[in-house]
Amino acid sequence: MSSADSVTAGLLVIGDEILSGRTKDVNIGATADFCTDLGIDLMEVRIVSDVTDDIVDAVNALRARYTYVFTTGGIGPTHDDITADAVAKAFGVALPINAQAREMLESRWKQTGTEVNEARLRMARIPEGADLIVNSVSAAPGFRIGNVHVMAGVPVIMRAMLEALVPTLRGGKKVLSVTIKAAVGEGTVGGPLGALQEQYPDVKMGSYPQMGHDRVMTELVLRCSDAAQLEEAANKVRAMVAEAHAKAGIAAPAED
Amino acid sequence: MSSADSVTAGLLVIGDEILSGRTKDVNIGATADFCTDLGIDLMEVRIVSDVTDDIVDAVNALRARYTYVFTTGGIGPTHDDITADAVAKAFGVALPINAQAREMLESRWKQTGTEVNEARLRMARIPEGADLIVNSVSAAPGFRIGNVHVMAGVPVIMRAMLEALVPTLRGGKKVLSVTIKAAVGEGTVGGPLGALQEQYPDVKMGSYPQMGHDRVMTELVLRCSDAAQLEEAANKVRAMVAEAHAKAGIAAPAED
Repeated sequence: MSSADSVTAGLLVIGDEILSGRTKDVNIGATADFCTDLGIDLMEVRIVSDVTDDIVDAVNALRARYTYVFTTGGIGPTHDDITADAVAKAFGVALPINAQAREMLESRWKQTGTEVNEARLRMARIPEGADLIVNSVSAAPGFRIGNVHVMAGVPVIMRAMLEALVPTLRGGKKVLSVTIKAAVGEGTVGGPLGALQEQYPDVKMGSYPQMGHDRVMTELVLRCSDAAQLEEAANKVRAMVAEAHAKAGIAAPAED
Repeated sequence: MSSADSVTAGLLVIGDEILSGRTKDVNIGATADFCTDLGIDLMEVRIVSDVTDDIVDAVNALRARYTYVFTTGGIGPTHDDITADAVAKAFGVALPINAQAREMLESRWKQTGTEVNEARLRMARIPEGADLIVNSVSAAPGFRIGNVHVMAGVPVIMRAMLEALVPTLRGGKKVLSVTIKAAVGEGTVGGPLGALQEQYPDVKMGSYPQMGHDRVMTELVLRCSDAAQLEEAANKVRAMVAEAHAKAGIAAPAED
């Protein structure tokens, strides 16, 4: 439920290795947690392959729609790393070697005795007008252009870049949440929960079946930026669950 | 690299719990592996929240573009389960209670002593003209309408539904892959690998840095549906890696 003053985000994950199943993505979950912590509503995620026009289309669709766009993947030194090219194309700007990025990289390479070559210098190519996103892990920078934040795909580097972004991002209202556990199935609480959702439209109510327990369990998650409204709705849900428990002959009250 | 006779797919993951970070998705990786095994090119993934119009837009975008669309999530009994409504809207058809689905569910509920109520019967609502996708785990069916396959979000149920689909899906050419390990950085192999990619345009070459090892490691992954071409290109890549190793004073040859 995004309102006029909410801060939203879209995430674009770039890489054939995710779509082939060879690499199992963990950046989506990390970005989701990051956004939730800052009160930013992550509204949409897309994963596309290493094809320039697909990246351009996705970047342009997401940057028009959300406050912030994050991308991960495709900024390394090999031919299949085309994210910088695609983002430059999406913004219609050139992609020169950036002096500051080159200096950062060469300084690191000097320390590690790494040869400077054309492939490695690809990582210093930054769209004109972009700011660098530094990371201490690999020294190869990401960049921000407009509302688009381009980050590495390697999870530890990506998370370092996210942390580096915190001071530059405007957080929305922090969203509070309450989780209520019910020892009955989703189908039992579905009707009364739907009625409570209508009664409290600003409290977003989700219902999630828990499999693999000895008994049927359902987790009800309530989210709202207003603490008083959230608590009032949560008390109604707790009472509803207690009633469902009583009807089913279960002694336990709703458990947070 | 999709050709005229390739079979493609798009995946749509539906659910606020993924975008908030509360649930970490595992269905994307499972679907990616499933498609790769069948020779289907998974081309794009989108994750959207429980908002009808967002689901409708994503379903319509993906079903126009790919041979198959898979969706996961949002087919349970609670008010936030709106995938069936959205897919019916996307296809412009009604969403009546399906007699066969109702029978499946009531038969299971009879066995387990589960009460039939309005919320549970939501799970028997199937778009007009759709076929059911059965699953033995929960008895609540998914469905296929046109090229869109609507599945549960709970991973064990989703995987059961994927397996149930196998006989109905047309597989593409099986894509073969070779992984070659290099004990040098991506920046070292980047130049010559790019040249080999140009020489073998039908062999898709990816380069992936391996972090967390004692020494720098890069995995080069070659994918192609033609075994002879793949092997020829792989031998060239092995020779290139061996040369890079020799130059760096590393005794080990390229390792598969």
